[in-house]
Amino acid sequence: MEIDETVNPWRTLSSRQVYDNPWINVREDAVVRPDGKDGIYGVVHYKNLAIGVLALDGDFVYLVGQYRYPLGRYSWEIPEGGCAEGEDPLDAARRELEEETGLQARQWVRAGEAHLSNSVGDEYAIWFIATDLAQGEPRPDGTELLHVRRLPFTEAVRMTLAGEITDALSVLAITRHRITGILS
Amino acid sequence: MEIDETVNPWRTLSSRQVYDNPWINVREDAVVRPDGKDGIYGVVHYKNLAIGVLALDGDFVYLVGQYRYPLGRYSWEIPEGGCAEGEDPLDAARRELEEETGLQARQWVRAGEAHLSNSVGDEYAIWFIATDLAQGEPRPDGTELLHVRRLPFTEAVRMTLAGEITDALSVLAITRHRITGILS
Repeated sequence: MEIDETVNPWRTLSSRQVYDNPWINVREDAVVRPDGKDGIYGVVHYKNLAIGVLALDGDFVYLVGQYRYPLGRYSWEIPEGGCAEGEDPLDAARRELEEETGLQARQWVRAGEAHLSNSVGDEYAIWFIATDLAQGEPRPDGTELLHVRRLPFTEAVRMTLAGEITDALSVLAITRHRITGILS
Repeated sequence: MEIDETVNPWRTLSSRQVYDNPWINVREDAVVRPDGKDGIYGVVHYKNLAIGVLALDGDFVYLVGQYRYPLGRYSWEIPEGGCAEGEDPLDAARRELEEETGLQARQWVRAGEAHLSNSVGDEYAIWFIATDLAQGEPRPDGTELLHVRRLPFTEAVRMTLAGEITDALSVLAITRHRITGILS
């Protein structure tokens, strides 16, 4: 069967915004579903791209730990942050890495991209590999109380496999790098 | 420095629900941020777990393609669906695999878990590896117009590395399996 991936089998009848803040807006659409029946679709639009940085110093990698309010728990992750519309993702990556760890990197490679979810939200993530690092002073913003760890990359891989790192973007960046095997 | 990962550095002053549907609710909390300043936090709570199934038939894997309404684009993914609170994730995985592909699997392994995002939403995903497959009839629900592909697992790995599969849960399941190397 020929697949036309450009055809949207959903029809949007109307759309109303139900919530808005500086980071997201939420709308509810009245839709006709692929089977022709009426329905609703609540969609969460993310105003920022998610940015992640796998900062590598030889065989070592940097992780940051922080309490994640929506999850209600502590989380060890690669340095991450938001990239506003119109901002260069690489500029955002440089800023977030330096804010959270104090690190500056001379080498940057755009390493991957992903839709973090697909059912309700449109959050899109881009991650980078940063190398050739120089240490400066971290200056986290007011929403972040961070701890920074420098650990062997192989230990970070172990943490993802053991479920000690559960943040999807962090796991994506670490496992992808493990596969492409620059260090392995 | 001793890190106490149980301490929540945020304080919630009040909370009001701003949106609710069968799949999510959205609330806005008035908070005191880690730096002591007042702020707001909009939180999207997901009522279902996200479930993914890496269905393997020897060196082959099954992908499903569908138009994803929130993303506004077509997406090739592993079979995925939701698991309501109180439902056994394995039961949900069996149901979603059979609905979307017609496949029944005799062997199931719980393979990984992840927080798909961390800034705004609390969506949590669990994925399984399903093997020893038998083919029946797919019966997608009314929100799904699906295409099913059976392809070499190595081709699915290539698609993740090439950015042709961008769904985070699919990439997590495929790359993790590539690392643990049962097939490789």
